[in-house]
Amino acid sequence: MFVKLIVLISVKNSSFLPNRPLKVAILGSSGAVGHELLKILADRDFPISELVLLSSSRSAGKKIIWNEEELITQEVNKNSFINVDLVFASAGSSVSKQWLPVIRDQNALLIDNSSAFRMRDEVPLIVPEVNPESAFNHQGVIANPNCTTILLTLVLAPLNQISTIKRIIVSTYQSASGAGQLAMEELKFLTGQYLDGTPRQSSILPHSLAFNLFLHNSSMLSNNYCEEEMKMVNETRKILNNQDLRISATCVRVPVLRAHSESVNIEFGESIDLLLAKKSLEESNGLRIIEDYDANRFPMPIDVMGRDEIAVGRLRKDLSNPNALELWLCGDQIRKGAALNAVQIAEILLPENHE
Amino acid sequence: MFVKLIVLISVKNSSFLPNRPLKVAILGSSGAVGHELLKILADRDFPISELVLLSSSRSAGKKIIWNEEELITQEVNKNSFINVDLVFASAGSSVSKQWLPVIRDQNALLIDNSSAFRMRDEVPLIVPEVNPESAFNHQGVIANPNCTTILLTLVLAPLNQISTIKRIIVSTYQSASGAGQLAMEELKFLTGQYLDGTPRQSSILPHSLAFNLFLHNSSMLSNNYCEEEMKMVNETRKILNNQDLRISATCVRVPVLRAHSESVNIEFGESIDLLLAKKSLEESNGLRIIEDYDANRFPMPIDVMGRDEIAVGRLRKDLSNPNALELWLCGDQIRKGAALNAVQIAEILLPENHE
Repeated sequence: MFVKLIVLISVKNSSFLPNRPLKVAILGSSGAVGHELLKILADRDFPISELVLLSSSRSAGKKIIWNEEELITQEVNKNSFINVDLVFASAGSSVSKQWLPVIRDQNALLIDNSSAFRMRDEVPLIVPEVNPESAFNHQGVIANPNCTTILLTLVLAPLNQISTIKRIIVSTYQSASGAGQLAMEELKFLTGQYLDGTPRQSSILPHSLAFNLFLHNSSMLSNNYCEEEMKMVNETRKILNNQDLRISATCVRVPVLRAHSESVNIEFGESIDLLLAKKSLEESNGLRIIEDYDANRFPMPIDVMGRDEIAVGRLRKDLSNPNALELWLCGDQIRKGAALNAVQIAEILLPENHE
Repeated sequence: MFVKLIVLISVKNSSFLPNRPLKVAILGSSGAVGHELLKILADRDFPISELVLLSSSRSAGKKIIWNEEELITQEVNKNSFINVDLVFASAGSSVSKQWLPVIRDQNALLIDNSSAFRMRDEVPLIVPEVNPESAFNHQGVIANPNCTTILLTLVLAPLNQISTIKRIIVSTYQSASGAGQLAMEELKFLTGQYLDGTPRQSSILPHSLAFNLFLHNSSMLSNNYCEEEMKMVNETRKILNNQDLRISATCVRVPVLRAHSESVNIEFGESIDLLLAKKSLEESNGLRIIEDYDANRFPMPIDVMGRDEIAVGRLRKDLSNPNALELWLCGDQIRKGAALNAVQIAEILLPENHE
């Protein structure tokens, strides 16, 4: 499933993970992404000698069965990272920032799912199918991009190989899972209450998602865009290594449980052959084309829930600009949008994948 | 609520409806739009001497209480339109086409909610706040635009007054109601089944909308756009009277019951002042601004359900083009997107509104 990389660049030995089974810590192990990480590490036979599950004091003491072993989540403390080789963090920016110095002291590699370090020059921001070579330039931290950005760049990268992308206009259809497990539970609960004729207020998300939707609830910035939208703008530029890329985004939360969708308008500097564009997507790792015009069958959230690939379809000429294409994509936000991408980043740095 | 028009153009007397209470027929009275029409005609004291409810044989014989009167839906036949002055049709294109000759024979005016006649040169396509003057050019038929187009043009028209719009890229978030009452019932039923752990296949819509979404299910055309998307393109051009307007649309069905939302990117020939643009929207009939950046509060479907006004907000400069703006809108698809707009068209042609 994951194609091994042929690395042609000169790489410091210190960029690799140790060439032995690793002591791995998961910081934020009780959340939706942490849960998926455990599943993916087992499914992909990631070389683990010891797995340490770390959480806040609130979630500590939970029993979790992993690879037929009973593990207990522990409250993170300054001794949690002793002899750890690799940390996957998905407990939010402040937690990642708080523990980075301790992780560094152990010479462990942090693969961080929060936005804390993504835009720092010295931190690689990696989508393994797009810019794997940048992972080797790490200084102890590699950032996992925002979920919507991972899905978008997976589709943009092959098209950008045909002709440099000039401008992107994207509108998202983001599931409750992006706000965590509790938001997913709230969506189900509030929908049930609505159907029972006893609608209730939300307490996790700012508004009820029951048969409703709203613009993304991340903080508004002074340019009238929200943080989520600016993550798409800034992170996409960094991953595609094109600071001149023009992007505008509208991020919307919809009453879907765990897969994000995106309506994407992509403008090039020249007219692009549609068949060539489709071929480039078909030949890309991590993508699945769902496009049957006769049956009117294109990607849906339920096609990608629990799956690794991003589904893409409805690739077509923009009616309003001969140099632009429109397309539609769906991807599992927890899996490729977070946990799977983080594990794939670690896999790039396993010496066994470069023998 | 509805501002009376000052008509400065020369109008044939025959363009007006008769100057007395009218005999009105509703063709498709048992559907979601028919139901809303009845409510709006009563609420707005539309001058009616007699109301005839027409339906297919399947829906005939239903008792409906309207203005404290018991009415019974009748199967439509060639005698249904005798002495009728005004027909509101919302039973689909084939029904409208079938009965138009009979309606014409009675010199009745047809205000048609289907797409049957919208693009015919001799048929005005009217959004009363946008192009009311064109209503007087009718030859017995006036078309009510597609719901997504009504909402879009209401917002575009005031901006187009500031500077001519060159290009629009729109992605929609369309509710189940656009596919009728049965689709709304199906969404509720399938969502309940999903929550009960017994998910089922859809039978009204092509896929289940329960915590899912999909690209619009109207027929695909040879340009890889669906009919719904091309309605937005062609009808918007006709209503704004600008055949050079460049538009591309992506239409998506989402698990919302009865209000549509749209993410709209609008490009002008020059840079537009944001405050001036916002002022033009604030001063427009039929619009309500919901825009609180501090509270992160913008339009949602639940804000507009059962309401006349289209809610608009998140008006902001496009980050990727200095001549473009982005905005977000929500509108009740059954009300302003269909039934209310049709009644407002008829009101333009009431002599009492021009005394």
